[in-house]
Amino acid sequence: MAKSILITGGARSGKSALAERMTLGLGRPAVYIATAQAFDAEMADRIAHHQQRRGPEWATHAEPLDLVDALARTDGDRPRLVDCLTLWLSNILLAERDWRSEADRLVAALADQAAPVVVVTNEVGSGIVPENRLARDFRDAAGFLNQSVAAASDDVWLCVSGCPLRVKPPLDGTPVP
Amino acid sequence: MAKSILITGGARSGKSALAERMTLGLGRPAVYIATAQAFDAEMADRIAHHQQRRGPEWATHAEPLDLVDALARTDGDRPRLVDCLTLWLSNILLAERDWRSEADRLVAALADQAAPVVVVTNEVGSGIVPENRLARDFRDAAGFLNQSVAAASDDVWLCVSGCPLRVKPPLDGTPVP
Amino acid sequence: MAKSILITGGARSGKSALAERMTLGLGRPAVYIATAQAFDAEMADRIAHHQQRRGPEWATHAEPLDLVDALARTDGDRPRLVDCLTLWLSNILLAERDWRSEADRLVAALADQAAPVVVVTNEVGSGIVPENRLARDFRDAAGFLNQSVAAASDDVWLCVSGCPLRVKPPLDGTPVP
Repeated sequence: MAKSILITGGARSGKSALAERMTLGLGRPAVYIATAQAFDAEMADRIAHHQQRRGPEWATHAEPLDLVDALARTDGDRPRLVDCLTLWLSNILLAERDWRSEADRLVAALADQAAPVVVVTNEVGSGIVPENRLARDFRDAAGFLNQSVAAASDDVWLCVSGCPLRVKPPLDGTPVP
Repeated sequence: MAKSILITGGARSGKSALAERMTLGLGRPAVYIATAQAFDAEMADRIAHHQQRRGPEWATHAEPLDLVDALARTDGDRPRLVDCLTLWLSNILLAERDWRSEADRLVAALADQAAPVVVVTNEVGSGIVPENRLARDFRDAAGFLNQSVAAASDDVWLCVSGCPLRVKPPLDGTPVP
Repeated sequence: MAKSILITGGARSGKSALAERMTLGLGRPAVYIATAQAFDAEMADRIAHHQQRRGPEWATHAEPLDLVDALARTDGDRPRLVDCLTLWLSNILLAERDWRSEADRLVAALADQAAPVVVVTNEVGSGIVPENRLARDFRDAAGFLNQSVAAASDDVWLCVSGCPLRVKPPLDGTPVP
């Protein structure tokens, strides 16, 4: 079974740059699976900013919804980078699909890849409780999704101000009770 | 003096599941001290979700306000799990009690237990500064409370996407300046 | 080149207290460079709270905008504490200065100090995506600034409930891919 890595962190914490480095460390060239959709100029700016950082070593696949299919299509001898899980969840909710069954399918698919996958996600649950119900539901779903994918991953990293901190396997090797 | 453990993390980061495992690791059966109050259907759902995970090994005490009394009542030979500190703080503020003196009493009580206590709390201070004053005051109070309880705890863990990361004692054993 | 330390964390996570201890550990007496401006009573309260903790061992310089100048003015044989970077960024944006070039100047200056500098900053990007554009832009800028200063720092610490966790250099010594 191929290696699966999850990288999480707050906004602009250096997750994507770390994920790109880690993916290329697993093999070159690599495949970039983008979940972002450019609905407006702000989003288009963000996408452009990320593309700027990547070079000719990347083949880009845009897939806002059907991540499992995108993983199947790109499973060969090249490492894949999925950026990012939180936008994918947002797309799934906007499309009014059932996020729980989509998440289950994704977790099952991640466990069944021939080539390695690095997944980027976001920490969205460490602020004050949001006032609107939709935002609360989103952060709950994002938290559950992060837990599920982390449980299925070999390595999990938290990015803090651009510094990667390994959270799985545990740093000190101590088995947690 | 009995062991005291604090587990913190964002929303849906796996804190409660970890806390339950750790508490049962300290002794079975165990006591669950719930601070949640079911004001509405959403809250009732959340309480039901947490209860679902726990089995017959748990005796449940609901105590939204008088945590010190609940700890005294349940102090015997069974480990206790308090879930969670942030809701308790919210209840104290809604009841218009003085949170600082309540926090001082709690910290003093935690240092004086015969049976171990595992406490769950929330990270609420890592988002953008809230626009309303009440939310700012709440996250300040929550931060101070977390610091006080952490200072009185033997172990402190941060949950990230379901992965526990030890923050006290320091992972590398280095004394911090 | 003098030692440069960055301390980050959420609101009320114990960053300032840790930074004061670390700064005094680098030499006594020390210099405190405050970026806060007391626009209103709430802010004045926060400033007073921080001043209360510090004693006569500190010489205080208030500098809301020209941090590079403040560092130059205070560069001698005493360690400096800058508290905090996030308020400085906010001041720069309010003054309608170009934060990117100011950040570049600051990072260059930090690499060129004779006396050590401890910098406090805030995690603001781990909550739900803010609804207003200004808040989103601010958290992006804050995240980029934190990454830049962290990259230029010898040590980076994350404060969690008052517990310091080293994120740079990596705790387990593993070179990150």
